[in-house]
Amino acid sequence: PPSPLQPPGLPLAPCRSFSNNKIQVELDESSGVAMMKFKSPPVNSLSLEFLTEFSISLEKLENDRACRGVIITSAVPKIFSSGLDITEMCGKSMEHYTEFWRAVQEMWLRLYGSSMVTVAAVNGSSPAGGCLVALSCDYRIMAENPKFSIGLNEAQLGIVAPFWFKDTFVNVVGHRIAERSLQLGSLHPAPEAHKLGLVDELVPEEKLMEKAAAVMAQWLALPDHARQLTKTMMRKAVLDRLVAHREEDIKNFITFVSKESIQKSLRMYMEMLKKRK
Amino acid sequence: PPSPLQPPGLPLAPCRSFSNNKIQVELDESSGVAMMKFKSPPVNSLSLEFLTEFSISLEKLENDRACRGVIITSAVPKIFSSGLDITEMCGKSMEHYTEFWRAVQEMWLRLYGSSMVTVAAVNGSSPAGGCLVALSCDYRIMAENPKFSIGLNEAQLGIVAPFWFKDTFVNVVGHRIAERSLQLGSLHPAPEAHKLGLVDELVPEEKLMEKAAAVMAQWLALPDHARQLTKTMMRKAVLDRLVAHREEDIKNFITFVSKESIQKSLRMYMEMLKKRK
Amino acid sequence: PPSPLQPPGLPLAPCRSFSNNKIQVELDESSGVAMMKFKSPPVNSLSLEFLTEFSISLEKLENDRACRGVIITSAVPKIFSSGLDITEMCGKSMEHYTEFWRAVQEMWLRLYGSSMVTVAAVNGSSPAGGCLVALSCDYRIMAENPKFSIGLNEAQLGIVAPFWFKDTFVNVVGHRIAERSLQLGSLHPAPEAHKLGLVDELVPEEKLMEKAAAVMAQWLALPDHARQLTKTMMRKAVLDRLVAHREEDIKNFITFVSKESIQKSLRMYMEMLKKRK
Repeated sequence: PPSPLQPPGLPLAPCRSFSNNKIQVELDESSGVAMMKFKSPPVNSLSLEFLTEFSISLEKLENDRACRGVIITSAVPKIFSSGLDITEMCGKSMEHYTEFWRAVQEMWLRLYGSSMVTVAAVNGSSPAGGCLVALSCDYRIMAENPKFSIGLNEAQLGIVAPFWFKDTFVNVVGHRIAERSLQLGSLHPAPEAHKLGLVDELVPEEKLMEKAAAVMAQWLALPDHARQLTKTMMRKAVLDRLVAHREEDIKNFITFVSKESIQKSLRMYMEMLKKRK
Repeated sequence: PPSPLQPPGLPLAPCRSFSNNKIQVELDESSGVAMMKFKSPPVNSLSLEFLTEFSISLEKLENDRACRGVIITSAVPKIFSSGLDITEMCGKSMEHYTEFWRAVQEMWLRLYGSSMVTVAAVNGSSPAGGCLVALSCDYRIMAENPKFSIGLNEAQLGIVAPFWFKDTFVNVVGHRIAERSLQLGSLHPAPEAHKLGLVDELVPEEKLMEKAAAVMAQWLALPDHARQLTKTMMRKAVLDRLVAHREEDIKNFITFVSKESIQKSLRMYMEMLKKRK
Repeated sequence: PPSPLQPPGLPLAPCRSFSNNKIQVELDESSGVAMMKFKSPPVNSLSLEFLTEFSISLEKLENDRACRGVIITSAVPKIFSSGLDITEMCGKSMEHYTEFWRAVQEMWLRLYGSSMVTVAAVNGSSPAGGCLVALSCDYRIMAENPKFSIGLNEAQLGIVAPFWFKDTFVNVVGHRIAERSLQLGSLHPAPEAHKLGLVDELVPEEKLMEKAAAVMAQWLALPDHARQLTKTMMRKAVLDRLVAHREEDIKNFITFVSKESIQKSLRMYMEMLKKRK
């Protein structure tokens, strides 16, 4: 809504912001655009805490009549988000796994189903869950640095991407590319990601935010209501599929993550990451 | 069928034509190809009368054993068709809205489900319903004039394209491009439309009809029966979806178009169009 | 599995091979890669005998823990496979048609649903059923010879490709390209096939096997289990559709092939092929 209700006589606050531990949000009320910055070093991994904060931030913006669009980017150099936090899947209780997976689902349902315009300004690498965040936006702009890569690389870790990661991916790049990329667990360097349609546009890193703002302005030039209904029409089938199979999907995750072989390979992977630092 | 039944002794009419108010049809019996020209100035808008004539013309050709393919083009300069006639949606009765929407559905069911080869020779701009007509053909050739644009731009008017417009669009350009284009209500200039796959081919305007005839000849070189069954196999799911939800779709249209906010914005749009003249 | 069970003391056989009449298979146990060569001159047509041998070979490899991937190619110059053997569809009994069609289905179910990595090294033309074999693999590399063509050209013969041919095709090239190509019964020369996405890569003919081996090594670098589950997730819907309609699909084939008009056109086609020799 272009003109939010204001008590008479009070000046319009030019900017509202809130920030918790992991994500910083600034809403520019004049444009109706919120800037959401992931600031959870070293790699913006999607921990339970991060996901909860992410969902709450999205919900707040969704319910804020002054907000019409959100640009999602990272405050951490070189990384957009490294994806799901593996420590949440390692040596924890069934209850924890359940809570964690529900939080992953919740984040995606809110983001993919958001009625706001969502633009991902991918200013660093974005594997696995990080890629899902970008795929769930309406538009993806990526810094044209070939050192930055993006993809659903779960298969590389011996993990299978959930069906709704796959559905989201297929909606963006089509069946053939999704099939190959998912089976190979490919991480596509920015230029390749652009060629495949995984990101919509590449720009020099220093122009990324400027471009994201321009794209957002283009999308906000449309009346909200028709755009929102159109978005729902396009995404409903895939959203409904998770809603219909949510508990089953949680059970699958728990069964999978509880396997000793998976626990072992996740532990090995974490050891490797620690040594790398 | 190459040799239609003829009373013995009568010479074979080389050409049959019929024309009502809005559409001119000429069938060349030697080739089996009908030329269908929209001639409803100023912009070939899809009024109830136009749609009715369009459906009847398609039905006639469909039932004419001498006809195997139809080329659809415009006799009005610079415009293929401007889409649904807004005056049919403004200040009319429920009965009228019902009749009008049923006519829109009927046209699409006949055209998208036609057993004839259908080639769109898009010789001008083709927004909204005009784009749907082109999308529903088997092949789209467009004049390579960048001033001509095509797209489902309903969102620009605060309107949501019906699900079967969307289904037809997705079948042509895929999910990602359809999602973005529909949300933005984009009108793509001919070169961009070609790049997106929205039209299959661009040719200089003066070569358009020649090219359309050549493409038609290529398609008619195939035996009809197998081609028709193949077409049905490809399009049946999307056709069946409207058939199954036809009354519901009419109700949705009426509910939508009866809203005061929509009536208001349609009236404003018509005023703007009038002033432009 | 990298280390197959071996009786202690016995040396590991470096290579296992088996060959029947139509197909030669060599399994390199060190790499886990089987080379499957069609050797049924003149054109590797998919006869009942060929299909049976094909399915049995796939089953053997599938059950061999030493085998993780298979490269499919032709030992016959200039032709990968000419597709279904028309003599199997001409002047035979209902029982024969049933047996034949079940064998076609069986081959596809095994190949499209294979848990192995499947790479098609398309070293010659590949119409109709030959194209289906290539489409059913995980990756398609084609010799970049423009004289070699590939496509589902059934419509050219007055035949309709079965729905599961179509589903496989749509999964590879998308709806628009599939619709046009199937209706026209197009045979795409290698460069065009590559442009359409029908094959993933073109290489000079003399580099084809080297490239296929390199691609296979890339796919085998991934852990099998996650890759297999991912593949199943991508292909299950289309596989299940045939499984659910298998008997109906056989009936359709019999009804179709038993028509006198079809028998006549198949006989004419066979005569033409004989004269060509």
